[in-house]
Amino acid sequence: MFTGIPFSLCYCEQKCLSLLHSGLITFSVGAILWFFTRKADRNIGKREGYIIVSFAWVTISLFGTLPYLISNYIPNFTDAFFETISGFTTTGATIIADIESLPKGLLFWRSMTHWIGGMGIIVLSVAILPLLGIGGMQLFVAEMPGITPDKLHPRITQTAKRLWLIYVILTFAETIFLMFGGLDLFDALCHSFATMATGGFSTQNASIANYSAYIQYVIILFMIFAGTNFTLHYLAMHGKIREVWQNEEYRYYILLTFGFALIVGVILAIFGKSGIEESFRNGLFQVVSIVTTTGFITSDYLLWPGYIWVIIFLLMFIGGSAGSTGGGIKIARQILLWKNSALEFKRMMHPKAVIPVRFNKKVVSQEIIHLVVAFFLFYVLIFFAGTFVLSLLGLDFETAIGTTIASLGNIGPGIGGVGPVENYAGLPNAAKWISAFLMLLGRLELFTILILFSPSFWKK
Amino acid sequence: MFTGIPFSLCYCEQKCLSLLHSGLITFSVGAILWFFTRKADRNIGKREGYIIVSFAWVTISLFGTLPYLISNYIPNFTDAFFETISGFTTTGATIIADIESLPKGLLFWRSMTHWIGGMGIIVLSVAILPLLGIGGMQLFVAEMPGITPDKLHPRITQTAKRLWLIYVILTFAETIFLMFGGLDLFDALCHSFATMATGGFSTQNASIANYSAYIQYVIILFMIFAGTNFTLHYLAMHGKIREVWQNEEYRYYILLTFGFALIVGVILAIFGKSGIEESFRNGLFQVVSIVTTTGFITSDYLLWPGYIWVIIFLLMFIGGSAGSTGGGIKIARQILLWKNSALEFKRMMHPKAVIPVRFNKKVVSQEIIHLVVAFFLFYVLIFFAGTFVLSLLGLDFETAIGTTIASLGNIGPGIGGVGPVENYAGLPNAAKWISAFLMLLGRLELFTILILFSPSFWKK
Repeated sequence: MFTGIPFSLCYCEQKCLSLLHSGLITFSVGAILWFFTRKADRNIGKREGYIIVSFAWVTISLFGTLPYLISNYIPNFTDAFFETISGFTTTGATIIADIESLPKGLLFWRSMTHWIGGMGIIVLSVAILPLLGIGGMQLFVAEMPGITPDKLHPRITQTAKRLWLIYVILTFAETIFLMFGGLDLFDALCHSFATMATGGFSTQNASIANYSAYIQYVIILFMIFAGTNFTLHYLAMHGKIREVWQNEEYRYYILLTFGFALIVGVILAIFGKSGIEESFRNGLFQVVSIVTTTGFITSDYLLWPGYIWVIIFLLMFIGGSAGSTGGGIKIARQILLWKNSALEFKRMMHPKAVIPVRFNKKVVSQEIIHLVVAFFLFYVLIFFAGTFVLSLLGLDFETAIGTTIASLGNIGPGIGGVGPVENYAGLPNAAKWISAFLMLLGRLELFTILILFSPSFWKK
Repeated sequence: MFTGIPFSLCYCEQKCLSLLHSGLITFSVGAILWFFTRKADRNIGKREGYIIVSFAWVTISLFGTLPYLISNYIPNFTDAFFETISGFTTTGATIIADIESLPKGLLFWRSMTHWIGGMGIIVLSVAILPLLGIGGMQLFVAEMPGITPDKLHPRITQTAKRLWLIYVILTFAETIFLMFGGLDLFDALCHSFATMATGGFSTQNASIANYSAYIQYVIILFMIFAGTNFTLHYLAMHGKIREVWQNEEYRYYILLTFGFALIVGVILAIFGKSGIEESFRNGLFQVVSIVTTTGFITSDYLLWPGYIWVIIFLLMFIGGSAGSTGGGIKIARQILLWKNSALEFKRMMHPKAVIPVRFNKKVVSQEIIHLVVAFFLFYVLIFFAGTFVLSLLGLDFETAIGTTIASLGNIGPGIGGVGPVENYAGLPNAAKWISAFLMLLGRLELFTILILFSPSFWKK
């Protein structure tokens, strides 16, 4: 919160006190909690793991509302919480119609929620979720090389430090590239935060639409980086490029993204009104933005021909790479699901034979397949349940579907009333809370949250 | 085809020759095929089973087009094939806008396709699919008591005879009840055929909407019968009512149907324009019609408040009971999916323990769970793929979704442009073929068809 203050001062804003006050409140509460727990046992188990992760996201989102509330720019608690959790879950759904009317300090905090959320997600998905055994994550995220696997606490710390270094380097690299394109430090930083976290908050009402082609290409490139498994960045930085390209998820990620971008680009070039370069750029930008679950916008895809619109909608169900800051089902899980499904026919013909799935050339255990399938089933059930409940709250069919998938997949823009040029302000309050809950569910890979509602979790 | 001729004669129609000619052609081809294969080996294996079942449905649908084509009432082959396969798969989707303009003989044949399809489905789901091991069907459909399980051929024949007797008895019972309500023999028979097959073809443009409350209640009752596992009818007819009520799928089927009917009824009574009895009747009729995948209509549910509309849409994903003439995912599979999913949390807390699902008080093997989950996964994948391809063909989002689920679930009316008061005539030809293929896929429980596309099926 303090980091926003310099920008408030630079731009001569009166409201910087709200950031100072929020920061002091948060710091004080944190200091008090730290003081009373500083000698507590650091040896945490699985059960504590679930609780810590879930409550961490809710707690930072609660304190994160303070700048909005104290500055009175978002006076309503529901809206402030929605905006903050949308930031920390790197969703990027907003209830603010006129973003440019907010003071720079507050906008910087808004982008900062993305960046902090993204930092949390990398460590969560690479170091913590695999240990908790959620949704097969242990398979997708390779062990960080050279990390001592014996103790939980130092291992997470070590992994976190290495990944965060990559995250910080990429963020500042993007900032510099964006400043070359003419953005000032403030806009460059905010957009870099949102890109690397696959968040999607912009400082502009028009998102990325009014920026130059150069800036759009820079953002495309860094969205692709952000949607990549961060352990692969680590390998690449150590010169192991071959290993990166041998990673099955990475190859599918790149092929799928550019494949669909090409399809959309060709259709836009033929049937759209803009030139060839712009058509391909818009297609690429929107496909990358949705697949990585960033949610930046360069053009209103709901105005594109109906079938591209549906391609974009279906891409919302895919998700980024495992171990990236992207949300959704994840490409690695999609690969396992499809491979496993394709083998069903072989299994039907040879019911006695054990026919395993292979991933990255290794046999995948039945346990992992089971976890992946369970993840997918819950994703589909939650998607249906979310659509149903939001419909009961009065949302029309497309808006209900759009809100559910855009929240659950941590994308941001959806379809219908929450489409790319709309925002979430018009939803009833109850729908905002459900959307916020779906963001949290999706971001923490469903089970981290759902297991807290299971009676067997609380039994001794 | 010959059975329609008496009605053509009764109503003094000139066009009865088309039925006669079609019947003679079909009979001749059948006789020739029978003559050359009458001494063939009757000992069929699994592989032959898949091929026979798949090709049987396609072949009868091809010959079934003859009356439409020869009479020139549906001159277009695509449309004629669509209407026929929609009949034989007991879907009930139609391309005919003015149904009442067709001669009675032809309408009788149209309803007859339902009835024949329903006969096939009962035997398929109770006797054949369990042997082929598709989608866990072996668990849901109890062995018919007193049937020798040693040989395939006599066993299927024995089961078929018993089930068809029930099917015929129920059909004629409904016919008599409907005639009491003032329908003539023709309309009573046609609607009974469509009800017991959970088909949905009516002889009226307004489907069931203009009939009396008594007739609607009769049809509701028999739709419920048609959506019930037919082995339970067999048990009930032998006085084993207790065993019927102890069947878990049956209990969920009844509770779910009446539960949702009550919800819809209450909402219609409060917010609708019709009286209390009519609101509840409409709610009950439409819920039963969709859950059993019949697709008869008493009122346009797309004009109901948005959230009921979505309830109806979501009910389209449930499906009738296993071993009934209803289509879709089936209630038994839904039960297993939900039970298995609920146990995932327990499994996460105790990763070493084996925690089995129970169904009808018995432990369900992992193999069956695997088959059920695989079925569900394919259902969802096909749903997405169908929506995608239909969108590419130019259908708008809701029509693409509606066509896919209404075809795949063998329901008939969907949402959007194929809603309850619309028909499928306006779809492009390619979309009609895809819809027809989806009907076949859904009707034959996906795998019977899909496995034919798998290379491992054709390998020695």
